[in-house]
Amino acid sequence: MARIGVMGFGVVGSAVAYGFRKMGHEIYVYDVNAERVKLAERFGFNAAGIEDITECEFIFICVPTPCRQDGSCNLEYVEKAFWDLISTCKKKGNDKGQIIVVKSTVPPGTCERLRNYAIDTEVNVHVVSCPEFLREKHAVEDFLNPDRWLGYVVIGGFEKQAVDKVAELYKDFNAVIVKTEPEVAEMSKYVSNLFHALKISFSNEIAKICERLSINPKKVMDILRIELNRATYIDPLLGPFTGKCLPKDLEQMLALCESVGYDAPLLHAVKEVNERVKEVNERVNHPSLRGRGLSSGDNDAINPHKTRRAG
Amino acid sequence: MARIGVMGFGVVGSAVAYGFRKMGHEIYVYDVNAERVKLAERFGFNAAGIEDITECEFIFICVPTPCRQDGSCNLEYVEKAFWDLISTCKKKGNDKGQIIVVKSTVPPGTCERLRNYAIDTEVNVHVVSCPEFLREKHAVEDFLNPDRWLGYVVIGGFEKQAVDKVAELYKDFNAVIVKTEPEVAEMSKYVSNLFHALKISFSNEIAKICERLSINPKKVMDILRIELNRATYIDPLLGPFTGKCLPKDLEQMLALCESVGYDAPLLHAVKEVNERVKEVNERVNHPSLRGRGLSSGDNDAINPHKTRRAG
Repeated sequence: MARIGVMGFGVVGSAVAYGFRKMGHEIYVYDVNAERVKLAERFGFNAAGIEDITECEFIFICVPTPCRQDGSCNLEYVEKAFWDLISTCKKKGNDKGQIIVVKSTVPPGTCERLRNYAIDTEVNVHVVSCPEFLREKHAVEDFLNPDRWLGYVVIGGFEKQAVDKVAELYKDFNAVIVKTEPEVAEMSKYVSNLFHALKISFSNEIAKICERLSINPKKVMDILRIELNRATYIDPLLGPFTGKCLPKDLEQMLALCESVGYDAPLLHAVKEVNERVKEVNERVNHPSLRGRGLSSGDNDAINPHKTRRAG
Repeated sequence: MARIGVMGFGVVGSAVAYGFRKMGHEIYVYDVNAERVKLAERFGFNAAGIEDITECEFIFICVPTPCRQDGSCNLEYVEKAFWDLISTCKKKGNDKGQIIVVKSTVPPGTCERLRNYAIDTEVNVHVVSCPEFLREKHAVEDFLNPDRWLGYVVIGGFEKQAVDKVAELYKDFNAVIVKTEPEVAEMSKYVSNLFHALKISFSNEIAKICERLSINPKKVMDILRIELNRATYIDPLLGPFTGKCLPKDLEQMLALCESVGYDAPLLHAVKEVNERVKEVNERVNHPSLRGRGLSSGDNDAINPHKTRRAG
């Protein structure tokens, strides 16, 4: 049994608090909003001050990360929560290697920045990224049953020991535990949601095409659903799609869309991205460039010779 | 055991011929290309004239459907094959309800047009769409083992009896048999390949973003791969994505992409498609429009009140 502090009692925080209490842990909840503190108490949680929270072995930051005006991620709540924690630790001399787990969705590199604050402030805490993948309307259920939703828990950290300790908290959950670097964990949350957004927009685009062709889109997508559990072609090392089928069928569907007056922005973007990747491939395969060597950061060239064909 | 004619001995035709022979059927192969006929004979198949082919109970059309200059589907080989078949049937008075199965990838509506030719010519044959989903490089293997690749066989026909007879041919394959309308079957092949193209381009786009953020894209996509077997959000009736997470995370990733100088065409297209669907939803939900009724062909409005939220 561990002593767990939860900062923020919104959708994620309440699911974390409820879920870990159900797994037998002792939970302390902190929130700046008095109403949410009352709510937490009504659910039987210990309302805590920031000093009580620093007594916990694990501290989960579950505060909002809304968009700023320009769309970028507003990190002020995360930074405020983290700063309150480490400055209290510093003041009390209470920094015994607590593990601060960032549950909020944050841009890659955020945990590294937070960790650097702690190092600069000379406070001995560990920062771990463990993004929450639950659905808004099924928060508690998804937290407790990762297997029924996405099937994994991603834990990204700088020190193996801290990662292992967080993994231990999840040992009774029926989920694949992925231990990785913090920036991979942070990015994986965005990628998961972007992929959902992609599938939804693809479904909507196919519906628009089907509408113009008088085809039932539900029946078409129900067929696609059968194959989805094949997990094919999700691999950034594949390079562009080539071969006889995918480029041809994409071309033909674009022509068909044009003939029925639908401009298909998503399918056009697929073509554009593929052509760019192909261009890079051709460039790196060009005789004049061979053997020149590529910067290791150049992912376009991770495997420029590989391409993917499907029937 | 059935007598099966195969028109076209390319990637698809040879897999069909080899696969059905392995299942115990008698195969007759027809091809306009003398080299491919020789090849078929070398593999032990009966080379057939068009008249022998019309003696078969099932005739599989497996000819190419390349792109025309403008990207649209060139159907001349399919139409020629079909026309040769039905004119021979007509001439010989040999039209006892043979089942002509279109394996070639064709735009939705093609089988209906072929069937109308037959009706106009007063030839008694059945047209069935049964697109082939195999991969170019694993054609025979994928044909024989649909379960190891996509997991289904789609059979679209106008008459239940013809569909059932084709389904009977596949009864020993380990696959889900989907019986449906021809246009749904035809569309499902494009959608399957478009979805592969989408995933590949998404993987490439994420790789480009990761490159600029110095993140290992393979590790990120390996995490996504775990969740792929959940078959979530492939549903054209869901409406746009809304809620707290997907729009926010898309916005933040677009802002992040901009800050690192990547224009992310696919993610921008996801946003555009979603905004269009949202607009339609708002329009149909507008008080001034309520109860006006929508044309049944308007898929935008299949379920305008439904939206999808994810955490």
